[in-house]
Amino acid sequence: MIIVKVGGSVFSDKKGEPENFEGETVRNIAMEIASFYPDESFIVVHGGGSFGHPEAKRYGIREGLPGNWKKAHLRRIGFTRTHQAMLRANASFIEAFLRENLPAFSVSTSSVFITENGEVAYGDLEVIERLLELKFIPVLFGDVSIDLAKGIDILSGDQIITYLAKMLEPDKVIFLMDVDGIYDGKPGEGEMIQELQKEEIDFLLERLHCTAAGTDVTGGICNKLQEAKKIAEHSEVWFVNGKVYGRLSGAIRGDGFGTRIAL
Amino acid sequence: MIIVKVGGSVFSDKKGEPENFEGETVRNIAMEIASFYPDESFIVVHGGGSFGHPEAKRYGIREGLPGNWKKAHLRRIGFTRTHQAMLRANASFIEAFLRENLPAFSVSTSSVFITENGEVAYGDLEVIERLLELKFIPVLFGDVSIDLAKGIDILSGDQIITYLAKMLEPDKVIFLMDVDGIYDGKPGEGEMIQELQKEEIDFLLERLHCTAAGTDVTGGICNKLQEAKKIAEHSEVWFVNGKVYGRLSGAIRGDGFGTRIAL
Repeated sequence: MIIVKVGGSVFSDKKGEPENFEGETVRNIAMEIASFYPDESFIVVHGGGSFGHPEAKRYGIREGLPGNWKKAHLRRIGFTRTHQAMLRANASFIEAFLRENLPAFSVSTSSVFITENGEVAYGDLEVIERLLELKFIPVLFGDVSIDLAKGIDILSGDQIITYLAKMLEPDKVIFLMDVDGIYDGKPGEGEMIQELQKEEIDFLLERLHCTAAGTDVTGGICNKLQEAKKIAEHSEVWFVNGKVYGRLSGAIRGDGFGTRIAL
Repeated sequence: MIIVKVGGSVFSDKKGEPENFEGETVRNIAMEIASFYPDESFIVVHGGGSFGHPEAKRYGIREGLPGNWKKAHLRRIGFTRTHQAMLRANASFIEAFLRENLPAFSVSTSSVFITENGEVAYGDLEVIERLLELKFIPVLFGDVSIDLAKGIDILSGDQIITYLAKMLEPDKVIFLMDVDGIYDGKPGEGEMIQELQKEEIDFLLERLHCTAAGTDVTGGICNKLQEAKKIAEHSEVWFVNGKVYGRLSGAIRGDGFGTRIAL
């Protein structure tokens, strides 16, 4: 089984119009997956892009549920609006996959997972495992979450994948990004790393000054590397460009262009 | 806590245009609920109407997943299409509730429940219970389901409510219908029953010739009465007209017009 993460920046421009969706990119991703299905099983997890992020930020979802009734009420409304925006992104994914005759099935992250300070504290994978057995392609997404510590929070796609990798032990986790892989410095400046050893991740994190939290509501490349370090305990990990047709297939086959972290 | 079931025929004409939605009726329901929230807690469950039913029927979802790959594949596609249609109905509900400033939150039935021959075999209510604690209004819906016996099936809104009533012991379950209540015969012909004793339900089922399954994919009034009999073990049950403004409030207060089955 392979888990494919479609980063928000791959299918949507966070700085563009609200809820913009790059249908062609997602159709290409679906086409690549279609050429391996049903011999290979897949779980797809996508990010928020211009769908979830603006709402999550506007309403301050990550700050949790405050004690003041009026403020808490507004945040509840924002919690719902953020989820609905993510469901709209998700519906466009499902539609693109159906066009390629793939039985992608929407699983609502917030209906399944409970977090504690944004990390999965609990998630019932029964439905996801049975969907896989029945040859569906479960499609999850970064979403709002009920949080044991803060009342409510955001559960990022990357966090979901860390949890899924630990519980389901996939053969491979492939992160689709809008750059070619992990760079030894800023993308475009540093050199792309083709083979990254698990043991080198801490060193790279240090070199990229990944001490503070990312600026993204769900964290940027630092968060991604930190999650990758955990995922690499359970699965091979790939980082490839999701905007270039063929790169995903290369990672699925195992001979592709991008960054690979061997198990 | 009160569970409100909004029957498909209340918000949608199953014989009308695909995915027709009576926004005004749903806004009225939201307004009635808003006048009791947050003193009273609510779970809302809605049916399929012109959203889920046509897709479920076209693809034969209730027949389960066949052994033949090609037929099974088409049914998987239909399974997904049915769920997406229900998510569209659900999104319109959420929007109507948000307009009344109610923090309704969508919970995807198929992400939470697994059935066995269409009855809930397993459902993790952790998220729903926490949503209630945090003063959200969880909104569920009749949906497709992973089924232990048939691979896939339909989980009706009424079945969900039977399960929720057993597990959560609500103060009241209110069924909104497009008629005034339960009739001692065909609606409009027989007399409406204002007080129905639990012990009388079997007698009524017999009188209405409720031996065969209903004609609806999720069953008609016979199924409803059969479920009501189970629910009445755990909760007071009301059947009221969801198209007449004020009837829901009457049932919430306890002095309304409709059919009441006392606990």
